[in-house]
Amino acid sequence: MGKPVNSLRSPRFCGIRTFQRLPHETDVSGNDFAVMGVPFDTGTSYRAGCRFGPAAIREVSAILKPYNHVLDVDVFEHLEGVDAGDMDIIPGYVDESFAVIERETARLCSQGATPVLLGGDHSVTLPELRGLTRTHGPVALLHFDAHSDTGNDFFGKPHNHGTTFYWAMEEGLVLPNQSSQIGIRGPLYSRDAWAYARSKGMQILDGWQVHALGTAETIRRARERVRPGTPVFVSFDIDFLDAACAPGTGTPEVGGFTTHDALALVQGICPGLNLVGMDMVEVLPEADHGAVTSLAAANIIFAFLSCLAHNRRGRK
Amino acid sequence: MGKPVNSLRSPRFCGIRTFQRLPHETDVSGNDFAVMGVPFDTGTSYRAGCRFGPAAIREVSAILKPYNHVLDVDVFEHLEGVDAGDMDIIPGYVDESFAVIERETARLCSQGATPVLLGGDHSVTLPELRGLTRTHGPVALLHFDAHSDTGNDFFGKPHNHGTTFYWAMEEGLVLPNQSSQIGIRGPLYSRDAWAYARSKGMQILDGWQVHALGTAETIRRARERVRPGTPVFVSFDIDFLDAACAPGTGTPEVGGFTTHDALALVQGICPGLNLVGMDMVEVLPEADHGAVTSLAAANIIFAFLSCLAHNRRGRK
Amino acid sequence: MGKPVNSLRSPRFCGIRTFQRLPHETDVSGNDFAVMGVPFDTGTSYRAGCRFGPAAIREVSAILKPYNHVLDVDVFEHLEGVDAGDMDIIPGYVDESFAVIERETARLCSQGATPVLLGGDHSVTLPELRGLTRTHGPVALLHFDAHSDTGNDFFGKPHNHGTTFYWAMEEGLVLPNQSSQIGIRGPLYSRDAWAYARSKGMQILDGWQVHALGTAETIRRARERVRPGTPVFVSFDIDFLDAACAPGTGTPEVGGFTTHDALALVQGICPGLNLVGMDMVEVLPEADHGAVTSLAAANIIFAFLSCLAHNRRGRK
Amino acid sequence: MGKPVNSLRSPRFCGIRTFQRLPHETDVSGNDFAVMGVPFDTGTSYRAGCRFGPAAIREVSAILKPYNHVLDVDVFEHLEGVDAGDMDIIPGYVDESFAVIERETARLCSQGATPVLLGGDHSVTLPELRGLTRTHGPVALLHFDAHSDTGNDFFGKPHNHGTTFYWAMEEGLVLPNQSSQIGIRGPLYSRDAWAYARSKGMQILDGWQVHALGTAETIRRARERVRPGTPVFVSFDIDFLDAACAPGTGTPEVGGFTTHDALALVQGICPGLNLVGMDMVEVLPEADHGAVTSLAAANIIFAFLSCLAHNRRGRK
Amino acid sequence: MGKPVNSLRSPRFCGIRTFQRLPHETDVSGNDFAVMGVPFDTGTSYRAGCRFGPAAIREVSAILKPYNHVLDVDVFEHLEGVDAGDMDIIPGYVDESFAVIERETARLCSQGATPVLLGGDHSVTLPELRGLTRTHGPVALLHFDAHSDTGNDFFGKPHNHGTTFYWAMEEGLVLPNQSSQIGIRGPLYSRDAWAYARSKGMQILDGWQVHALGTAETIRRARERVRPGTPVFVSFDIDFLDAACAPGTGTPEVGGFTTHDALALVQGICPGLNLVGMDMVEVLPEADHGAVTSLAAANIIFAFLSCLAHNRRGRK
Amino acid sequence: MGKPVNSLRSPRFCGIRTFQRLPHETDVSGNDFAVMGVPFDTGTSYRAGCRFGPAAIREVSAILKPYNHVLDVDVFEHLEGVDAGDMDIIPGYVDESFAVIERETARLCSQGATPVLLGGDHSVTLPELRGLTRTHGPVALLHFDAHSDTGNDFFGKPHNHGTTFYWAMEEGLVLPNQSSQIGIRGPLYSRDAWAYARSKGMQILDGWQVHALGTAETIRRARERVRPGTPVFVSFDIDFLDAACAPGTGTPEVGGFTTHDALALVQGICPGLNLVGMDMVEVLPEADHGAVTSLAAANIIFAFLSCLAHNRRGRK
Repeated sequence: MGKPVNSLRSPRFCGIRTFQRLPHETDVSGNDFAVMGVPFDTGTSYRAGCRFGPAAIREVSAILKPYNHVLDVDVFEHLEGVDAGDMDIIPGYVDESFAVIERETARLCSQGATPVLLGGDHSVTLPELRGLTRTHGPVALLHFDAHSDTGNDFFGKPHNHGTTFYWAMEEGLVLPNQSSQIGIRGPLYSRDAWAYARSKGMQILDGWQVHALGTAETIRRARERVRPGTPVFVSFDIDFLDAACAPGTGTPEVGGFTTHDALALVQGICPGLNLVGMDMVEVLPEADHGAVTSLAAANIIFAFLSCLAHNRRGRK
Repeated sequence: MGKPVNSLRSPRFCGIRTFQRLPHETDVSGNDFAVMGVPFDTGTSYRAGCRFGPAAIREVSAILKPYNHVLDVDVFEHLEGVDAGDMDIIPGYVDESFAVIERETARLCSQGATPVLLGGDHSVTLPELRGLTRTHGPVALLHFDAHSDTGNDFFGKPHNHGTTFYWAMEEGLVLPNQSSQIGIRGPLYSRDAWAYARSKGMQILDGWQVHALGTAETIRRARERVRPGTPVFVSFDIDFLDAACAPGTGTPEVGGFTTHDALALVQGICPGLNLVGMDMVEVLPEADHGAVTSLAAANIIFAFLSCLAHNRRGRK
Repeated sequence: MGKPVNSLRSPRFCGIRTFQRLPHETDVSGNDFAVMGVPFDTGTSYRAGCRFGPAAIREVSAILKPYNHVLDVDVFEHLEGVDAGDMDIIPGYVDESFAVIERETARLCSQGATPVLLGGDHSVTLPELRGLTRTHGPVALLHFDAHSDTGNDFFGKPHNHGTTFYWAMEEGLVLPNQSSQIGIRGPLYSRDAWAYARSKGMQILDGWQVHALGTAETIRRARERVRPGTPVFVSFDIDFLDAACAPGTGTPEVGGFTTHDALALVQGICPGLNLVGMDMVEVLPEADHGAVTSLAAANIIFAFLSCLAHNRRGRK
Repeated sequence: MGKPVNSLRSPRFCGIRTFQRLPHETDVSGNDFAVMGVPFDTGTSYRAGCRFGPAAIREVSAILKPYNHVLDVDVFEHLEGVDAGDMDIIPGYVDESFAVIERETARLCSQGATPVLLGGDHSVTLPELRGLTRTHGPVALLHFDAHSDTGNDFFGKPHNHGTTFYWAMEEGLVLPNQSSQIGIRGPLYSRDAWAYARSKGMQILDGWQVHALGTAETIRRARERVRPGTPVFVSFDIDFLDAACAPGTGTPEVGGFTTHDALALVQGICPGLNLVGMDMVEVLPEADHGAVTSLAAANIIFAFLSCLAHNRRGRK
Repeated sequence: MGKPVNSLRSPRFCGIRTFQRLPHETDVSGNDFAVMGVPFDTGTSYRAGCRFGPAAIREVSAILKPYNHVLDVDVFEHLEGVDAGDMDIIPGYVDESFAVIERETARLCSQGATPVLLGGDHSVTLPELRGLTRTHGPVALLHFDAHSDTGNDFFGKPHNHGTTFYWAMEEGLVLPNQSSQIGIRGPLYSRDAWAYARSKGMQILDGWQVHALGTAETIRRARERVRPGTPVFVSFDIDFLDAACAPGTGTPEVGGFTTHDALALVQGICPGLNLVGMDMVEVLPEADHGAVTSLAAANIIFAFLSCLAHNRRGRK
Repeated sequence: MGKPVNSLRSPRFCGIRTFQRLPHETDVSGNDFAVMGVPFDTGTSYRAGCRFGPAAIREVSAILKPYNHVLDVDVFEHLEGVDAGDMDIIPGYVDESFAVIERETARLCSQGATPVLLGGDHSVTLPELRGLTRTHGPVALLHFDAHSDTGNDFFGKPHNHGTTFYWAMEEGLVLPNQSSQIGIRGPLYSRDAWAYARSKGMQILDGWQVHALGTAETIRRARERVRPGTPVFVSFDIDFLDAACAPGTGTPEVGGFTTHDALALVQGICPGLNLVGMDMVEVLPEADHGAVTSLAAANIIFAFLSCLAHNRRGRK
């Protein structure tokens, strides 16, 4: 069971890099959450290299502190957590890696810890959901992204980071009627690009809408669909952020959102929901600078953990 | 006549780099538009190197897709286009290069294609307008920029990237009464810096105003000046964007705009206008990172093409 | 007494780098303001290297011009200024360096020039205030920052860049009841992190508030506390800006502000106040790109100088 | 049939990027050689991203000129060549991509052009050899590399960039007794790492030997094994160069070679041999700087083309 | 007791970063060596930031493998080792940090492990030697560096990274008559810069000499001074390497050495000596690119470990 | 008259940046040498931006110290020097800028100071020689470069950085029979590329020769041509260095030289010659990293100054 190192005693640039300076434990039993890396980038269609995403997020996460003043919650008053290291995926082999990811995600859940997973490209969410739903059943999805990732075929093959949610819906892993895709934008392959998701009942709050609606209304629309108690999974593709705010990603999109928007949305939507896991995907350190993308990712994860702590507090 | 390669069949990182994966053809006859590079940076007064702007924009433009969901238009349902390569300007020689640029721009127009020109520094717009007006006559200018570029003398010489629109107005190439300069900001050389342009009738919607007015009102003010049917040229200096959103430019300015602002303005002002050409200037890849500046440029060009397609559709 | 080189005659990339191309004079007598570097970074708790901040700000400040169109003031119609070079601090030795900084700041004040100081890390503000208050007595503080810097102990030691304002208040150098900390945000060490400052009467306008209140109301709240004639010191930590807008800093924070926000706040709060000095701290060039952070710093300093000139004009 | 653009007339930064400014033609018939990209990096075991290698090499290859003064040969007096673009590999799918690479390599050979292939990771050499040997039969291999790439299993799977030559030998595509691996160095997985290759008759001239033997003796040992007329394939992994000379690669090794060494070896070994193809692999632009790695790659390819021209001249 | 993770089973980019993927244990008892970070950079006189050196070396050390073919030794057949994390130094406070470093180094020695220490700037070697000599008594020093670091005063203060070996000799921690400084070069403060060290009996093999003598003779001269059984400490400042081979350092010097030179010297001098510890200092990741400097550091440490294993084997 | 600031008292990162921390004086009378920047890059044919070369060299030159142990000379025991700032060239205008450069170089000579000029691109050497020969008459040229720069026409125009020495010889500014071009290499435009220079009597010691001859023989061949007392000008294009050693340049070439080679050649050839000036050209900071190219340039200039001091000492 773990708490972070105290950065008022040990400087933040000291020590083996784990997420937020948590203990590194592979057995996660007894913890409320477990951070684990999924350094798989075989599914990328443009820039590769987000296999180094988990390391980059860990490196800069040392800058985090425990108290969230917006939610007025000290995360580690309410939660124990550890960094469980990385999953040993198999670069270049999709199916074999998916099996590892599914198995490991299921293990974390079965040991009672909420998985907080660091991608890797967005294809990893499919096997994560396969593993997670073994314990929790189908989930409501809160999907922050510039891309809907609901294609069904790239280059004649089924799996890459652009088809994740097509298969997730096909396999019944998500509950589209309680789910939202937020921030989707940019040029599309065709007028029909979002038709499948919408036909399944998914709510798409595209980027132009979110800019127009504002944060508060977007929060309302996302929250109102989720029925009380439904297990909720947050999948955050860092390219939800504007390319200028998160240059370190594989398929950046302009016209996006600031980190303040992202924190406001996560901290606005998640309180009170039955959060069963999250992932943070598509952080590509080689294209980053000054670690701003990794830093954004670390803070958004911290926002999720704050909501988890907030909800835990509420339950007591 | 050309359409882009299908990126669902051929990965976006494959192939010789042309704008948006269009065919490379030097004879542009039969096309609705032609992209052409103008890699001239002899006119820069601070950081040099935007001769590599066209290559950088092409490289990242592979990420574009054909359908614009905001305007609900598939660009290539309505338009044929090619990438005509670069103009063979003569580095270090202003007048000789201007002659090449004027001749080549005129050729594209005379072959019936709308020129979409990739600078190069902003001095290139003067010879572009000289060439363009041979076919179209004087144009209304939509000028997005942090700088008005209406000086008349730098270091005792007439031509560099800060004097373009002084000469364009002097030579009668633009119609100031129908034109707007949008986003101008930053410290100025003197209180009189904008006096010449205003005396000619140019509307300056400076950066502080645009922030205060908002996108919708700015669109209204820019549109209301343009008389129906007047040929319109869009000149987009990437430093219109905030320095944080477009670091890859020669004279970046803070206090600027996001890519969402830029897309909203272009897609708000241009529909219904008689668009006869555009340029995208001052992209400086050496100062960029993660290609965010080139990516912004590519998307703004795509916004222009979307308006062109939208207008074409409307006309049918 | 000094004015900048004219960049319409001498290109901006020419010459020995001083702030805004001002003359370099070590004796500052007869000037209205003096820019001086304080390249001390021994007090940093995360990324080091802001000893190169002054050089980076000077390098890019060549891009500044003299006229501020928002305040309608030409800075050098009203002010004479010089660049007095850097203080010879002693890297690795806190107390010895603080003595140098205090002495040099006091010298500038006693020679009649308003100090405009380029850090260095934020620990330098403490000895600056010690020096400044010798002439001016306790000051109202306008503190722009992501962090309140009011800790009293790091690693068992009293001084680093996180304890500056604890000691400044303890030593009676600032007047908390007339002062404001603006933009403070991010995770905190504990629920009590801001308790000390508030107990002293300091106004904290935290980042979430500033986003919610907007610029105009923030300006109002900061101004209303300052009594007429009270000497005012502006301490600007560049991490007030969002990490995406100012990546070149030691402890970047997401969820922050744009350069437009910063300029609006400085130019909104400062007019009419009795400005007796400013510093710009925590610019870390090694983590910057395209010099956007240094550029932001230079423009914010220019905004301060514009207010100084505006106030001087008003007084005549 | 193609010659490069004349860079004394058209500046080298102008035009659509093809290798050495050659024409872009997909049908290569009638040419002596054809450059083609193989942007496949699914086989990488450490840093990913060499899918952008072909684009980077093309970009900087514009700097090449036609005459090689060391061999006293003007390449394009003797050779016609084109840039055939990239193979449409399928990212994330090894076998399917290998089929494309084999087919395309075979096509180039059957159209009579010597393939000059731009990787991509080193796994691509296996399907290249499968395609090439359809026309030429088994080849003598000149393999420049820091790694022998003769493992037979990574993570339980057969194919990645570390197993290429194990399978090439197993499949009878290379003639080990006439082949050499040059420059192999760095820590190894075990004492037996080179045992398989040596058991097949491969000559390993490891890095320490090459440093000790010098260029002339290394050339002699590599040449003496190749029987007159045997088809020879040159496979050049850019990490043959020292990490300081070629930082832009996926698994850099220290203790390596300079570009002068590389040019001396290629231009020393290849004259007079029956060269039937080459590849240049593992160029990773994201980890490069100043394009030094791509520049090295372009020049080594030019050295190969110079030998090809030299041999052609000799034959006449 | 520890061995590295097998990188043929778990990809090298997976897992929490420890040196060469060793286990992380703070109690090092039972191990032959212990790697520990000393992230102290308060002593730097030019570029700061090598507090991040240990993290950068660990990150890239994942690329190392266990077998050294030059010495024909598998390191982990003969040695157990762990990564003990970092020492909690106190940034900005020299004496207090020196006490921590001395205590922790002494602890590693007293627990029976050979310390392999990752700086941090070169000032750390002084307290390391204080700690080490508690167990081993005065040591012969093998000092690889561009600078002799034997000044006695910078800015009026005794301790920074340029005075380390003055104090080490003054305090009797090293045996100058058995020690060598190798590679010293570059402009000096005065003709007398090396006088103190030579007066104590230190052998200086300056950079020009090493270039002229060659590796073999340099090895001979360094070895012949060390008496059998004398405890030997290797202090390797990465700026021994040429600035082009190790750009990521605080005070780079041109005219230096390649990584091949460095490996040859370490592996040539150390076999058979009584090695009691080493440090690798002055790696500055912010100034590095492509991790070439960290990679060099990791490989030189591996060379040291190989010698340790070789000596251990010899003793059995 | 000037000496550098003492870096044992004032840290090297302090102060306004002048070359080697010399005083900044525009009147150079009474000094032995004057450093002056020539930030002109209008003549570049590939990558632009070396207008920032002087600033970058100055920035890193703070790391230099006064004593050269190879020549056993303390530069400032024998020489007074200042940094005279930059010439106000006119970007984009060749002839006008050449007039400025000629006039300013002549002024330095007429004031009795040896010019040490910091380019800018290599076209600046032509007007420098025009100015210099007014005082000294035709000079023997020691030209270190990867390119001979003796073309007579690029893009139909006479002047760019590739035609400098054609015109210098045509105008009788250099004495080819006493001059040498050293290090020329890389592909050439044609077999005749060097014919003109050789027909004039210039000695070309090309790169392959220099590698083969070694430093000592190259020194001998360069020295033996210079008659006693002939005024000698050293023109050093930083691309003489290998692309890996000097990535920050406009037209880098592989197969080049190390900084040790460069220092050995300059310090080997220049002693005893009548040195009347030098320039260091083509440093392009935007393509540099870790300042290694600027650092190399600063050290080579220091080697020249050391020879100047050595010769001065000899004369006394």
